[in-house]
Amino acid sequence: MLNFSVKKTSEKYRARTGLIETSRGKIQTPIFMPVGTLATVKSVSPEELKEAGAQIILGNTYHLYLRPGCDVIEKFSGVHGFMNWDRPLLTDSGGFQVFSLAKLSKLSEEGYAFQSHIDGSSHLLTPEKSVEIQQCLNSDIMMCLDQCLHYPADRSEAESALQLTARWAKRCKDARAKNDIGGTLFGIVQGGMFNDLRQQSLESIAEIGFNGYAVGGLSVGEPKDMMLEVADFTIPMLPAHAPRYVMGVGTPEDLVELVGMGADMFDCVMPTRNARNGQLFTRRGAINICNARFKYDMEPVDEQCTCYTCRHYSRAYLRHLYMARELLAYRLNTLHNLHYYLQLMQQMRTAIDADEFESFKHDFYAQRIA
Amino acid sequence: MLNFSVKKTSEKYRARTGLIETSRGKIQTPIFMPVGTLATVKSVSPEELKEAGAQIILGNTYHLYLRPGCDVIEKFSGVHGFMNWDRPLLTDSGGFQVFSLAKLSKLSEEGYAFQSHIDGSSHLLTPEKSVEIQQCLNSDIMMCLDQCLHYPADRSEAESALQLTARWAKRCKDARAKNDIGGTLFGIVQGGMFNDLRQQSLESIAEIGFNGYAVGGLSVGEPKDMMLEVADFTIPMLPAHAPRYVMGVGTPEDLVELVGMGADMFDCVMPTRNARNGQLFTRRGAINICNARFKYDMEPVDEQCTCYTCRHYSRAYLRHLYMARELLAYRLNTLHNLHYYLQLMQQMRTAIDADEFESFKHDFYAQRIA
Repeated sequence: MLNFSVKKTSEKYRARTGLIETSRGKIQTPIFMPVGTLATVKSVSPEELKEAGAQIILGNTYHLYLRPGCDVIEKFSGVHGFMNWDRPLLTDSGGFQVFSLAKLSKLSEEGYAFQSHIDGSSHLLTPEKSVEIQQCLNSDIMMCLDQCLHYPADRSEAESALQLTARWAKRCKDARAKNDIGGTLFGIVQGGMFNDLRQQSLESIAEIGFNGYAVGGLSVGEPKDMMLEVADFTIPMLPAHAPRYVMGVGTPEDLVELVGMGADMFDCVMPTRNARNGQLFTRRGAINICNARFKYDMEPVDEQCTCYTCRHYSRAYLRHLYMARELLAYRLNTLHNLHYYLQLMQQMRTAIDADEFESFKHDFYAQRIA
Repeated sequence: MLNFSVKKTSEKYRARTGLIETSRGKIQTPIFMPVGTLATVKSVSPEELKEAGAQIILGNTYHLYLRPGCDVIEKFSGVHGFMNWDRPLLTDSGGFQVFSLAKLSKLSEEGYAFQSHIDGSSHLLTPEKSVEIQQCLNSDIMMCLDQCLHYPADRSEAESALQLTARWAKRCKDARAKNDIGGTLFGIVQGGMFNDLRQQSLESIAEIGFNGYAVGGLSVGEPKDMMLEVADFTIPMLPAHAPRYVMGVGTPEDLVELVGMGADMFDCVMPTRNARNGQLFTRRGAINICNARFKYDMEPVDEQCTCYTCRHYSRAYLRHLYMARELLAYRLNTLHNLHYYLQLMQQMRTAIDADEFESFKHDFYAQRIA
């Protein structure tokens, strides 16, 4: 089950707050979803995720299908019981990882034939199979299998991909209907960097009808202004009564821009992955904790931040841990970055509710010195 | 400041409970000290250490001297403020790591000349320097610099080493007295695997006089029964009014045996390092979480264990995390193993206080099936 209601829309911007209700709890939007690839958001515990403000996390179907496999997760009635997470879970379709990680992926009308990047074993990911796996994972929000594109892709590639994506979306919906054991399905709009194809894709997906709509195929290597332009064209077209999810994006600035365009949901590895690379987000911009200037720095990463890391540790300590590649470094950095992203969403929700998104956005950029 | 009082001694065994009072709090003995090499017990937070029952941790002088360096730690008035740990800290002298890790270590009457294993830089570790560094770390219990020996070492090597260790111990005590800014100093008994040399070493160290006495040079490659034999000879000779610390030991069985001999303090990397290698301690013996038989295993590591890991996660999940080398694996495994070690000490304290150490020991071995 999934209900969505819009709470407040900005007067000047298209930014909006809303509420997604699932059987595992409510989600205040706009929201950022931390990525928990292998049934773990790398280095942090579920309790820490909650403390940081995570309302929903994302799991990767491709990864979980290969490791530990559905037969293991089934025993736990899904990912929640397996990983000790009782809030909602969104799963992707597996398509993007097949496209980007697997070996010898072969695309056909039927689906993706691919070899595991771990052991080379052969698999076939069809729309029906993707739904079946996501249901086995007991996902609260499932994504349709779509055809992903490299950037740049030419018009005919993009057109062919969006058409296949539409046919697959129908098969996903049918598979979901045949086995109605829970989990909502979202459709994905493709169309590359061509606005008219984005519109064409959306029409075919919306015609099938889903409980939420995602913009796929962004942040795949295109210039930033092109990404924002395509998003700005596509997001307002997505049905207003359903959650709008921009997949795999992005920087704090991206989130602010995309929320301003009316997007409700985001996921990205950036806060977690960059944390493991020593990059920490602050309201003044990102810093690299390795920098020698932090060697004796007794201040927290961000003196206004209320995360566990900033409440207890200095930049000097975090630098020391990171330079020594201590395991605690990854954890403390990840906690901070997730807190930053989730607080940013919270601040935007508050600003939108007070119809102050414009001044929020002004302040957000005014504080950045990087 | 450091006070030690014996609370209860077994009727039949030499096992005893006691209380160490330091300016940073009390320590119930016998106690196990988790190893926090680089101002972090790998992968876990100070709050988690406390929850697991850690009363005191150990820091490594050699490592902290090289990284981040005393100039950094001085700014935080020591390790406690740097790493967010407000309970007592014991530091080793640095001698063992120079001996085992550093390059081109050269021993002289003055001290150890060595090159950093990190960048090859040259350093001289004298008894005075060791005390100076440990004071800079703001250690609550400092250890005298001693001469470590390879196993096997012949009699003349062992004799020469214990004599140098005694001369260095005197220099450490003098250095500590000259700069009386806090921190108690413990002496170390060497003497290799020769009982009469152990006695000779103890006499020279006890004559100098310290607030605690450690047995060094065990678990350096000698057979287990030889280690226990030397310990059984040495421990009872250590002054009864002071804490007795067996350095760098050992397995759960070792701890039970050594407590039975009257030892009060232990440190060892085993629970933390083995956790990172997938080995988990249980009351039935150790298991390797990689084992295929745990793939579908929905039970916790030890169904009687009350640690965070066992309260929330299955063996199947821990195996999955470990097989995928997920960062959370190291943390959950470490939490369990530390809890196991610290609970084992707690159980021994309770048994000794009730004068039931004999039946505790019987039950301990009866439960082990590995």
